[in-house]
Amino acid sequence: MNSFGRLFRVSVFGESHGPMIGIVIDGCPPGIEIDPADLETDLARRRSGAIGTTPRIEPDIPEFGSGVFNGVTTGAPLTIIFRNTNTKSKDYSLFTTVPRPGHADFVATKKYKGYHDHRGGGHFSGRLTLGLVAAGVLAKKIVHKMNIKAELIEAGAKPDIDKAIAEAIENNDSIGGIIECRVENVPVGLGEPFFDSLESVISHLVFSIPAIKGIEFGSGFSAARMTGSEHNDALIDADGKTGSNYAGGINGGLSNGNELIFRVAVKPTSSTSRKQRTINLETEKMTDLEVKGRHDLCIALRVPVVVESVTAIALADMLLVDKAWQK
Amino acid sequence: MNSFGRLFRVSVFGESHGPMIGIVIDGCPPGIEIDPADLETDLARRRSGAIGTTPRIEPDIPEFGSGVFNGVTTGAPLTIIFRNTNTKSKDYSLFTTVPRPGHADFVATKKYKGYHDHRGGGHFSGRLTLGLVAAGVLAKKIVHKMNIKAELIEAGAKPDIDKAIAEAIENNDSIGGIIECRVENVPVGLGEPFFDSLESVISHLVFSIPAIKGIEFGSGFSAARMTGSEHNDALIDADGKTGSNYAGGINGGLSNGNELIFRVAVKPTSSTSRKQRTINLETEKMTDLEVKGRHDLCIALRVPVVVESVTAIALADMLLVDKAWQK
Amino acid sequence: MNSFGRLFRVSVFGESHGPMIGIVIDGCPPGIEIDPADLETDLARRRSGAIGTTPRIEPDIPEFGSGVFNGVTTGAPLTIIFRNTNTKSKDYSLFTTVPRPGHADFVATKKYKGYHDHRGGGHFSGRLTLGLVAAGVLAKKIVHKMNIKAELIEAGAKPDIDKAIAEAIENNDSIGGIIECRVENVPVGLGEPFFDSLESVISHLVFSIPAIKGIEFGSGFSAARMTGSEHNDALIDADGKTGSNYAGGINGGLSNGNELIFRVAVKPTSSTSRKQRTINLETEKMTDLEVKGRHDLCIALRVPVVVESVTAIALADMLLVDKAWQK
Amino acid sequence: MNSFGRLFRVSVFGESHGPMIGIVIDGCPPGIEIDPADLETDLARRRSGAIGTTPRIEPDIPEFGSGVFNGVTTGAPLTIIFRNTNTKSKDYSLFTTVPRPGHADFVATKKYKGYHDHRGGGHFSGRLTLGLVAAGVLAKKIVHKMNIKAELIEAGAKPDIDKAIAEAIENNDSIGGIIECRVENVPVGLGEPFFDSLESVISHLVFSIPAIKGIEFGSGFSAARMTGSEHNDALIDADGKTGSNYAGGINGGLSNGNELIFRVAVKPTSSTSRKQRTINLETEKMTDLEVKGRHDLCIALRVPVVVESVTAIALADMLLVDKAWQK
Repeated sequence: MNSFGRLFRVSVFGESHGPMIGIVIDGCPPGIEIDPADLETDLARRRSGAIGTTPRIEPDIPEFGSGVFNGVTTGAPLTIIFRNTNTKSKDYSLFTTVPRPGHADFVATKKYKGYHDHRGGGHFSGRLTLGLVAAGVLAKKIVHKMNIKAELIEAGAKPDIDKAIAEAIENNDSIGGIIECRVENVPVGLGEPFFDSLESVISHLVFSIPAIKGIEFGSGFSAARMTGSEHNDALIDADGKTGSNYAGGINGGLSNGNELIFRVAVKPTSSTSRKQRTINLETEKMTDLEVKGRHDLCIALRVPVVVESVTAIALADMLLVDKAWQK
Repeated sequence: MNSFGRLFRVSVFGESHGPMIGIVIDGCPPGIEIDPADLETDLARRRSGAIGTTPRIEPDIPEFGSGVFNGVTTGAPLTIIFRNTNTKSKDYSLFTTVPRPGHADFVATKKYKGYHDHRGGGHFSGRLTLGLVAAGVLAKKIVHKMNIKAELIEAGAKPDIDKAIAEAIENNDSIGGIIECRVENVPVGLGEPFFDSLESVISHLVFSIPAIKGIEFGSGFSAARMTGSEHNDALIDADGKTGSNYAGGINGGLSNGNELIFRVAVKPTSSTSRKQRTINLETEKMTDLEVKGRHDLCIALRVPVVVESVTAIALADMLLVDKAWQK
Repeated sequence: MNSFGRLFRVSVFGESHGPMIGIVIDGCPPGIEIDPADLETDLARRRSGAIGTTPRIEPDIPEFGSGVFNGVTTGAPLTIIFRNTNTKSKDYSLFTTVPRPGHADFVATKKYKGYHDHRGGGHFSGRLTLGLVAAGVLAKKIVHKMNIKAELIEAGAKPDIDKAIAEAIENNDSIGGIIECRVENVPVGLGEPFFDSLESVISHLVFSIPAIKGIEFGSGFSAARMTGSEHNDALIDADGKTGSNYAGGINGGLSNGNELIFRVAVKPTSSTSRKQRTINLETEKMTDLEVKGRHDLCIALRVPVVVESVTAIALADMLLVDKAWQK
Repeated sequence: MNSFGRLFRVSVFGESHGPMIGIVIDGCPPGIEIDPADLETDLARRRSGAIGTTPRIEPDIPEFGSGVFNGVTTGAPLTIIFRNTNTKSKDYSLFTTVPRPGHADFVATKKYKGYHDHRGGGHFSGRLTLGLVAAGVLAKKIVHKMNIKAELIEAGAKPDIDKAIAEAIENNDSIGGIIECRVENVPVGLGEPFFDSLESVISHLVFSIPAIKGIEFGSGFSAARMTGSEHNDALIDADGKTGSNYAGGINGGLSNGNELIFRVAVKPTSSTSRKQRTINLETEKMTDLEVKGRHDLCIALRVPVVVESVTAIALADMLLVDKAWQK
């Protein structure tokens, strides 16, 4: 299923080297002002071009295919399309026979019986996250009272990101990183005890971003090493404000009104120019593989805005659901 | 939404001190032999009673309300009910005014406008996981070729679980832990690139288990500190077997045929007999709170079987979806 | 899928001669007063007992399994169970070999690979509509400003229902009927253009009631014989009131504020004491079949309250969805 | 919700006079050969141009935006886009103040708070069915063993369609019609007892086609005037073949292996050049309205292929679901 959401529902489509990638948003409320220019800030944050990111740069020009009229959302399904323009004609079909380690080449060939569009990662490409960022801009407008901010807090095991990137360039080897996302002004009560806890819905969306290996909320994995008396956040006012925030803003699967905090782990990009060992599926023999091409040395640089976007999508959906029970 | 799944769909219901808790499974294939006794092993693993768990012990007798005939699943919705018997009549209504730190008391009062059943955690109670374990037994039968095993690998920051529990008892303070789940013989290709990646679906279900604060697949958070050349798992045979398994059995959101591996962090139980500070929502003044009652000192002891169960539910659903594309 | 709905979601379960039938309602708003006695009026309307209905009479005692506390809905999943008590122990297994004409015996055996509970119609039994009626009582409370009324307007090709029943009894042969449902005070704008038009959602639910063969809205099939200038309903005030109501209260899939009107056709019950011809699936030879037992001569007598109930369920769901876009 | 389906899921988007209309199909199996030319036969059947249909003729050129590679479906979401080209620039905004009788003008203004794209019917336009026809071509390939055929069997109360059209032209008034759809070779057991009966799913989709007022399966409304002994279809062989087919190929919500038969009523187009009475929402006074433009005198001429398409979509989805339970 390439769709997600209950009342604010997103459906992604497209392949890296096909004609386009895009997203359909079903359930976006009418009356929200939106202009292609509104997308530019977040699209630029996602776009490659910084040191450590791939030299493949696309203009990323959004086309509103439906759902916007006179610069305002109509309430009908809202479609945003990005034409693929800067696609290299290189042959990727080798990788269906000699799958790249760490990539989806092998699993895609199996799942899609060999019919998938293998060019540039096809439907598995990180380029699909363009649609998520576009939808995120709309979602942020729905939850405009909340303040969503994700940033890279560590790369290559270093808090000094620049230094980490420089070292990665020197080593010509990709590095991972950790992103922290914080959201202020989340109203109390978003989420469900089972199965749509706030953590469930956010993690569901976050793990659809390529290269994510883990997520933790509030105290996260360190909670496993704390005692209950340390970990319990004392309530200090009648709005539910707590002294500490080990809960990360969530109790019982519901937002508790404190800052929502979570961190995600991004693995080092699988793409590398280094020589690697892999299997040739036809000869069934091990072989060397060298992948030329344009790679991200630290994809984690581009992921924070995507994390923000899916968080906004999750919260916008829950906020709309929440209104159904208001008087 | 208290339901999850596409073709093997579970819906939970019930409150800790209400008449019953239960689960409805919609889409369970016909012809699976099932007997209440088949549930006993996993129910016993979940049940309290071990050192470090709550002294509230219920017999947990499952009643098949529908969907089973002559000891075999029929294909119609399968309902399993557990009557609540050992409920203490103590008044929990205090906690809607003086919410316990770390519990859902405050958020439940807000979300449900004060109408929720607050007794014993109500619908937020860990007792609801009984239904997940029951459904897990059926799911395991559907994915019987796979071998799912979760275990507590660390508690209270110690790999020596017994020692950790002993210390917790001595301190009379709850502790958390880390559970690792491994699944052998997962076929290649389960999951979807967007949004139903294998990680998305498993994490969605795992975060509906109370007390979970984080999840990581394969290398997990340590991936953020590795380089690409280290992290890429070399394919070593034509079935997709890899030398290392940093991917944790997943590429591009799909199972890759190697062992599925993930770990989850369990926080220390919020329930504690120690005196705590909290707010009185009526007086809006801080107050002391001492909660008498039966508590788990290490709830993580009881969670592995629940993790196994939701993993089985996720995999059973995906296996059924996968069959739709087979010839 | 034995579930339906977006924000007010119902899941039915149970078999005619199993331990129970029931329904889980997920998304019922908190704070609605509900007492088992509130269900009695509608349950009585559905219950057999009138002339022309089956002599099998069950007390139909609802048990609230979850989601109700102190006589008020909590917002958590609400479960209502009806124990089956008056089940005759007669062997129905004959019908898996010698399927009754007009029944689900043959298709059930095929779909469920022979494992279905065949007793008394099993999961296909009209008894399952008990759950719909129970959920309808709650749904009616949610849409309490609307006035939903369904009645049998024709039976056995006669507007004089009593006379038709008398004749059916004399002939000892079952008869069908036509039910009309009208709803006043539907707010403007419920429904969606694609795919959840008001007609789509109501017909989806109506055709899950056994024995329904057709549905028409407003002018219905007679529209096919009208001209546009006749059929267009002139708007006569600013609230959208129309002079005529051929639209049946719906334009473009959305409620238009006028009375919602639709009719459904109910077939004569398949159950009959008359001798019938059918196939013996084992011998593959034609054979006579005489079915003893308790039958409804005019099931249509019992269906109006079920039609009302599913209409209420549809409208309650749409009303909740509608609130998500309100300021 | 502008999406429908479980494993073969369609999402429509677009407005009549916006940049495009289109459809995303999620879950289309890989390996199906598809070429834009394959769509032409069905698109031509839907296209206007015949006597009695609107003179607005668009070339209807499908663009595969995603999900097709080398002329074969990939298994990833399949997007088909139709650019709108022949849009007249006439101002439709009048109709938000002076709504046309029989149209969605009034309800759309209310539901979408005045923000909808009102040009040419916007998202409510019959032009949206282009996407359904395109998806239907793919669905027909999935259920290629079945033979789906819908035709107009009556227009303007006449079985002689040509004569009816001639009369409509002479009267310059639109007429309705009745379409019958028949499907041969439906396997036994598609559908669910609750809520996804075959009738439920087909009617859900059929009522998303504009202008449909009723649907009946098999004997339909005439069943209400038959007796049980007449109506029961005797089984005459071990494959479930029946002598008569009053059931229309469905028992208990499931296909029974006999021909699937249903009829739908199409109302006369609301668009008319005749002078009509309506309300001016601003002045709140009644007024005359004359609508110039290009209208269909008998939209029913163009609907059969749309009915076939949604039937194919329903059956393809159910066939895929059915495979999940096969060995």
